Order: sequence, then C-alpha cells, then structure tokens
Amino acid sequence: MTKPAGNTNIAVFDSTLRDGAQAEGISFSVEDKIKITRALDELGVAYIEAGNPGSNPKDLEFFQRVKGINLKHAALTAFGSTRRPGVAPAEDDNIKNLVLAETPAVAIFGKSWDFHVTDIINTTLEENLAMIQDTMAYFKSLGKEVVYDAEHFFDGYKNNPEYAIATLQAAKTGGADWIVLCETNGGAFPQEVFDATALVVKEVGGKIGIHCHNDGGMAVANTIMAVEAGARQVQGTYVGFGERCGNVNLCTVIGNLQLKKRMQCLPDGKLQELTPTARYIAEVANISLNEREPFIGNSAFAHKGGMHIDGVHKNVRSFEHVDPEKIGNKRRFLMSEVAGRSTILNKIRKVNPNIRKDSEETQLVMQRLKELEHEGYQFEGAESSFELVIRKTLGKYKPFFTLDHFKIIDEQMPDGTHSSTAILKINVDGKEEVTAAEGNGPVNALDKALRKALEAFYPELKEVYLADYKVRVLDTRSATASRVRVLIESSDGRYVWSTVGVSGDIIEASWLALVDSMEYKLLKIIEEKASAYM
Amino acid sequence: MTKPAGNTNIAVFDSTLRDGAQAEGISFSVEDKIKITRALDELGVAYIEAGNPGSNPKDLEFFQRVKGINLKHAALTAFGSTRRPGVAPAEDDNIKNLVLAETPAVAIFGKSWDFHVTDIINTTLEENLAMIQDTMAYFKSLGKEVVYDAEHFFDGYKNNPEYAIATLQAAKTGGADWIVLCETNGGAFPQEVFDATALVVKEVGGKIGIHCHNDGGMAVANTIMAVEAGARQVQGTYVGFGERCGNVNLCTVIGNLQLKKRMQCLPDGKLQELTPTARYIAEVANISLNEREPFIGNSAFAHKGGMHIDGVHKNVRSFEHVDPEKIGNKRRFLMSEVAGRSTILNKIRKVNPNIRKDSEETQLVMQRLKELEHEGYQFEGAESSFELVIRKTLGKYKPFFTLDHFKIIDEQMPDGTHSSTAILKINVDGKEEVTAAEGNGPVNALDKALRKALEAFYPELKEVYLADYKVRVLDTRSATASRVRVLIESSDGRYVWSTVGVSGDIIEASWLALVDSMEYKLLKIIEEKASAYM
Repeated sequence: MTKPAGNTNIAVFDSTLRDGAQAEGISFSVEDKIKITRALDELGVAYIEAGNPGSNPKDLEFFQRVKGINLKHAALTAFGSTRRPGVAPAEDDNIKNLVLAETPAVAIFGKSWDFHVTDIINTTLEENLAMIQDTMAYFKSLGKEVVYDAEHFFDGYKNNPEYAIATLQAAKTGGADWIVLCETNGGAFPQEVFDATALVVKEVGGKIGIHCHNDGGMAVANTIMAVEAGARQVQGTYVGFGERCGNVNLCTVIGNLQLKKRMQCLPDGKLQELTPTARYIAEVANISLNEREPFIGNSAFAHKGGMHIDGVHKNVRSFEHVDPEKIGNKRRFLMSEVAGRSTILNKIRKVNPNIRKDSEETQLVMQRLKELEHEGYQFEGAESSFELVIRKTLGKYKPFFTLDHFKIIDEQMPDGTHSSTAILKINVDGKEEVTAAEGNGPVNALDKALRKALEAFYPELKEVYLADYKVRVLDTRSATASRVRVLIESSDGRYVWSTVGVSGDIIEASWLALVDSMEYKLLKIIEEKASAYM
Repeated sequence: MTKPAGNTNIAVFDSTLRDGAQAEGISFSVEDKIKITRALDELGVAYIEAGNPGSNPKDLEFFQRVKGINLKHAALTAFGSTRRPGVAPAEDDNIKNLVLAETPAVAIFGKSWDFHVTDIINTTLEENLAMIQDTMAYFKSLGKEVVYDAEHFFDGYKNNPEYAIATLQAAKTGGADWIVLCETNGGAFPQEVFDATALVVKEVGGKIGIHCHNDGGMAVANTIMAVEAGARQVQGTYVGFGERCGNVNLCTVIGNLQLKKRMQCLPDGKLQELTPTARYIAEVANISLNEREPFIGNSAFAHKGGMHIDGVHKNVRSFEHVDPEKIGNKRRFLMSEVAGRSTILNKIRKVNPNIRKDSEETQLVMQRLKELEHEGYQFEGAESSFELVIRKTLGKYKPFFTLDHFKIIDEQMPDGTHSSTAILKINVDGKEEVTAAEGNGPVNALDKALRKALEAFYPELKEVYLADYKVRVLDTRSATASRVRVLIESSDGRYVWSTVGVSGDIIEASWLALVDSMEYKLLKIIEEKASAYM
C-alpha cells in the first residue's frame, strides 16, 4: 500500500519528470530528477510520476537510485502502456521494465479513441479492451496501486461514446484504483469536459481523475470543471512543462482549488511553498519561469498602472484576486519597489539578533538588495551569498584574502588542440601567493588556481568541492554581450551552500561566485571554532 | 461612424497598446505604437485601443501622429474614465484630452463594484450612476462610437448584483454602443462568467462585450464562455501582455472561436497571419514569446515523444487539435533520442531527395546523431547545425574557411578592471586574415573577431546578428569541469536559424556554434543564388 496523501480532498499527481520531460528544451539528468522528486515530496503532492522505464534506460537508472530515498508524502509512480496486442503482460518487455522500477504505484495508459486503436496501434477494438483489462489485473496481482490513464478520452467520447466508456469499464473490471480521463490533444472546451466527466462519474463510478493539455489555452479551466463534475485526482506538471503547449500547470490548479473552492490539495501549511517550489524546479530545469504565470509568477502581483497602485494601497482586494502571501509570492509596486521587509529581517537577525524592523541597518540592507537585484542578482538560490551581502553591509565582514590580479589564456592551436590556463596572485595578511593551473575550460582553470593559492593558507579548504555550476543568460537579446548569472553549489561532504555572481563576463561572474563560496566556508570554520570555546 | 469590422461575427478589440503597456517590462515608443497599429489593422481587428491620452502625454503625441495614417479595418480607440464626481464632462481634464485624441471611437471605464465606488473613488452610488450616464451621453453628442467598460463587473455582480446591473443600465441610457463586462481582477471561474453574461444579455440587452484578465489562468475559457452566453466583442491583448498575469491572449481566443466555434473574428484570408503577427509584435515589444503559447508558440505543434511522432506520421489528428498551417504556424518533429528514423529521413531528404529509409546513408546519419547526442549535443533547438551534420556525413559539405588558431585573454587587473580580447587567424582559399577584437566577455570578443575576419571575404555576413545565446551546463556534478552546451540563434532580419556546440570548454562550445551559424548562412546564400539560375 502507498502512503495516504495526508488530509487532502484532491490527490495531486505530478508528471513533471515524465510528461514534463517531453517538453521542448527540457532534458533532466538523473541528479536533476532526484532533486525535483525531493522538492515535490516536501511540498506534499500525492503521486510523483517520474519516468517511463520501458522506453528510456536513463529512467530505469533513476528508479534504481531513488529506491534508497524515503519519501514522506508521495507515492513514486512509473509510467508505461498497456501490454502490446497478442502478448501476455508478463511477457511484454515494456511491462517487465515497469516492474523492475519497483515503485508502489504505476500509471498505465491505454487507448479510448476507436480511431487510435484501429489506425495508430493497428489492432481490433476487442483486443484493445482485453489489453486494458489484462494489464490492470496483472499489476494488481503484483500488489501495486494502479492508475489508468485513458488517453484521448474526450476525443474518443466525441467520436464513439459507447466504446470510450467500454474502455473505462475494462480498466475498472481489471481492478484499476483510479480512472483518469486524459484530454491528450488539449483542444477541448470546459463545458464538454464537464459534461463528459459528470457522465463518467455517474455511469462508471469509482475514483476519477483528470489530465489536461493546454493546446487551446484552457487546461486550467478544463481541469477545474472536471473537479466540479466529480474528479478527485488532478494530473499535470508543476509549472506546466509538457509536449507542445504543455500540460496543465499544477501551481494554477492548486491555487484555484485550495484558495477559492476550499478543496485541499496540499497538506496543512504547505501552500506557502507553492511559489518557492516552482522557482526551485525551474532553476533545476534551467528554464526561465514565465513572469506572468498565475499565482507564482514574478509579475503575478506586480502593480504598474497608477490607478491600480492607488487602489491596492487603499484596499488590496481592489486589484488582487487572492493574497499573494498565502502562496509564498509577494506584492510588488513597480514604480516604488517595497520588498518583503520581514523576510529580510529574519536573515539579518541570523547575523545580528538585535536588529529591528525599523533599524537603520534594515533599511541599508534593503537598499543594497534592491541595487543588486537591479544588476541581475537573485538570492533565492544563493542564500550564502546573501548572508555575505548582509555581513558586508553591517560591517560584520573582513576579507580572507585579496586578489591582486588574474589572467586567463584560452587557446585553440593550429593542430586543433585546445587549452585553458589561469594565472593568479592573491594576498593574505601581507603574504603573496602566485599560482597557475590548467583546466578543462577557463572557469575550471581559475577555480583550480584559486584553490591552490588559498590552500597554502587555509588547508581546511582541501575538503571543499564544487557540487554544481549553473549559468543563466539574462537579457538574451544582446546575445553574446548579455549579462550572465552564475550559480555555484559547494560542499564539504557535510554541508551544501550556494553562491551567486553576475557580470557581463562569464569569467568574472564565475569568479564572484567562487570567492563567495570560499569565504563562506572559511567563515563557517571560524564560527564553529568560536562556538567550541563558548 | 467607424468602419465596419468586415464580414465577422465577433468584434476583436485589441488593447496591446493600452492595457498591454501596463505589463511589467513593456515600454512602447511612439514609433513602436505606430508599427503595432499598422500590423493589427493589416490583420483585421475591429478596434485598436491605443492609449490613455488623459494620463499619459506620450499617448497624446501618438494620437496626433497617427491621424495621417489611413486604417483599412480598425477603428482607433482612445481610453479613459468617466467624468470625476461633481464635474461636468466638458469640464473634466481627462475627458478634454480624450476629445483631443480625435479618434472615431472611445472606450470609457466606470465602476460597477459598489465597494470601489465608496472605498476607492470615494463617492456615492447615485453620483457614480450619473457619472456613467453623463459621460456616455457627452461622447455620443460628439458623434463618437462609445464602448463602455464596466470595470470589476463580475466582482461587483457577486457583491451587489442589483447595483452592478444598474451601472450597465446607466451606460445604456447614456447611449453606449457597446457594454463590456470586465473581469478586472482575473479571478473568476468560467461558469460564473457564463451565468452573469447570460443574465446581462437577457436583462440589459444591446451589444455586449467581454474583457478578461488571467490571474486564475482561465482568461481564455472565461472569454469563450461569455461568447457562448451571447457576448460579441472580445477585448484582450495580442499576445497576452497586461497588468500582473496579463489580459486574455487574443491569439488563443481567435484560434478557438474561428477554428472550432465557426465564429469569424478576422476578415477572410487573414487567419494565416495569426502567428507571423504575434512574432512581429513580440519583436517590436522586445519580448520573447513564450514557446508553449497555444496556437502561435514555437512549440505549439512540436512533437518530441516517439509515440507522438509515430502517431502524427500516421495521422496528424492523432496528436494535433488543429492544423497548424491554418494559423501560419508549423509542425515540427524534434530531433532527439526519442525521435524515430522517419523524422531523420525527412531531414536527410532536404539535402538529398534520393535517399531512402533503408539506404546506407540513413544508417550513417543515425549513427552520427547517436554519437553526438552521447557527447551532449541536442538538435531539437538547433536544426541548422543538424543540417550541417547531415551534409558532412553525406559528403555534401565544403568548409567556407579554416581556423588557424585563436587566443583569448581574459584579465582582471590589480585596479579591478576587467578586459577580454580575442586574436584569431583564419584562412579562405589560401588567403590569410588576422583580426583582433575586444568584447564584453570572452565569447563576445571571439564573435566580433570572427565576424571581422569573415566579412573581408563574405560581405553578406554584415547583415547577420546573434539574436539569442543560451548556455546549458551538462552533468553538473563535475561542476566547473562539466561539459556545456551552447545554443545560438542568428538572424539576418528575414530568417532565424539555430546552431549548437558542445565542449568541456565554454569558449570552444561557443566557437563551434558560431562557426555553424556563419557556415549555414553562407550555404543559404549559395543555394539562393543557384536557384535563381535554375
């Protein structure tokens, strides 16, 4: 048995790692998938559909690696199709791979549209019903929770309603725990979805789910209408990635259902994580979130027109449909930026617990943050750099070293060989150190040279390694002359910390993030030593 | 009288230049506004709401300049509010400015939500009704077509339905030609919008319009539901720009209504301009279009999963809700590890039409694609590089230049200044060219030096510029020594093409993508010249 979804009315089924991976421009590594799995589980979704082990060997590797991880809320789910025509489930290669994934739940798709049965998979309508029923029964016999995805259900229902319903009955007879109606081509209208779902709830019964795509721009409305007609599982992807125009964006569905329809989708206290989770997933996927995304977008509660700003100052509900804080987003006035003072205050108090909301220091840090954000900094994924910003602003900072200069030579030779060399000179308490290193690319060379120089003074840095390195091009319009933001994740084997650098030059941006990483580690060593004596 | 909207059932009212300009990040110059006005008129929308002359002096300048332009389809519309409390319309400064705009139509907004009347504009419910009626009557006396925007109508209707309806009656009594129901806060549900609109159509009558915002992600569905309830004017912005989460995206509304509900929105023959117009407006606004945008997005008809590609090859309606050509978009099969042999064959045939699925050449290209993907290449966003791969594999390629060597020096000086210089030597038909350039970062310097060198031989390259530059770090676990994939989008003002490079060194990866970009352009010049002689 899988774990219950907590005190929720609606089971949220997230397919970011499966249907989301079918979006143009998305390509998750196994490591990315593990990070996103942890984030979604922490948020409290009920199911995480994480891959198609039958069609993709990388997905099978993921399922092997994820077995050691203890999930709190979510049932890990592997995705695949019903058995092929004329093959027993236990003999079907795709199904064998699904079993190897050893997940508590499986999601199995089958055909509901008669045209797809006869013209795309080239079998008979009868055999298709048997394929559905047999596959459900097989997975139930293995003790799995089984979600049946009725692909193209709404198109099938329009074309041949009797047959479409018969496919659902086959799944039910086979023992499916959930029957999910898929609006695969994404072109249906809300009223159609409502009517067909209501009919299924009445005629087929059991636990019904909905899976919508956004080709007509109505995936959210279609999902909500299905829930109003009785569906209790909502499938989608966390920020709407997916084939073509994407799957329904679960952030939007959760925001609407939980705040306005009083249907609980996430465990208590988790709704505030809606926005931070979206930003984290986008960061891991290396995708820019659409600023105008409902609920979680950066502009979703940004007021620009003068009359709007005036109205919101008088009463927030004049131009806001919900309170942004409930979903972890924030209100912004674009002409007179006011950041979330209390959030920042919490960070400041970690450095100096005596500072108050109205202290001059709070004002100074907010001012500095505003300037840095204007330059392209973003501290959501780089809290260690932000701690250093606070320390520098409050005068609680003394550099561990100073850079005299560095020089990088990156060369492509006539024989086609390529080399990168960094030369660097630093100064620690009046002592100089000059080092050089070759690397796999200019940033790697610079990283090695800096590390070599610092280890002469701070041997503890030997244990530090860089765990992740990400580059985001800001303002892509100016192409190779645009600004870049570099995000570095470092680790010493026990802790992980993240730092950021922004510049027009990718090497300078990387340098800024590298320096923050080393300084933060040295700071933590001092704090640890100090607390041992106090 | 304004011009008729042609043979359409639905009057499309575009507010890109007014409500769209209230979006974060949008700032139109007068020149931009004129360009967009021409494009929207060419497309055949019925109304172009182009500014708020009372609140914005730049808008008044626009209206002066646009007077000389003869529009074919659209009625130019100026936007403003009802008269202020206690002031006659002819004495109200905002209204005077509206009159100065000398547009055939005006759109006037007034308050429908009792809370806004009493708490935001601080007047009485009675005076608000008089403000609406007087203002309508004043503009009708000047011979204008008058569109009344009932701001916050749906929230008002929920709070005090009697009063909300009374405000519409006041507009009707004053002589408004259209009464437009505004879902200003963007949080309503489709069924609510349908019910309230149907009631207004029945109880108030006349020509009704709908204006939706997207805060709940349901603006398209809400607009369609209002049309189904009898609304015949749809207000929105062309690609969905607007306050907060934006206005309804008119591209999506037009696509749905015209292709699926048989409601004509644009004059005959204009639907194919839907996608090119969206790209043009985004270009003028200097905004990247969301790739997943329904109907007009670059990914809207892009198929990636193997089963999807296979299905679409058998029958396009298996995974497409409409034919992309009808709206000027196109189907794409993404090159990836999940794509099948037939997708690749189609690409090969563009280079050599005689090759078959079982030819040895097909096998060779597939083998090469597999190797390159293993190295970290991904061709789904870089089809021009893939064409070059095919040409190289088939022996249909001759380099336009050879690199002797390049050298990049990136330096951080003791005084903190930072510089990047590239030196490069290339060879074209035995002639050498040595150039050097400074840039904003190493890649920009290299780009400039290469361009300088090539222009000596190929002056046509002068018109090429880089439109986009993206970096993706692969295998982030090896951090700064990881491989990177660089994606470059180039343009010559008419066409856009994309190329890719992968390497452990970001500079080498950028170099590979830059070289592909230049070579692809030179190849296309030769093809164009050749076809002119054949």
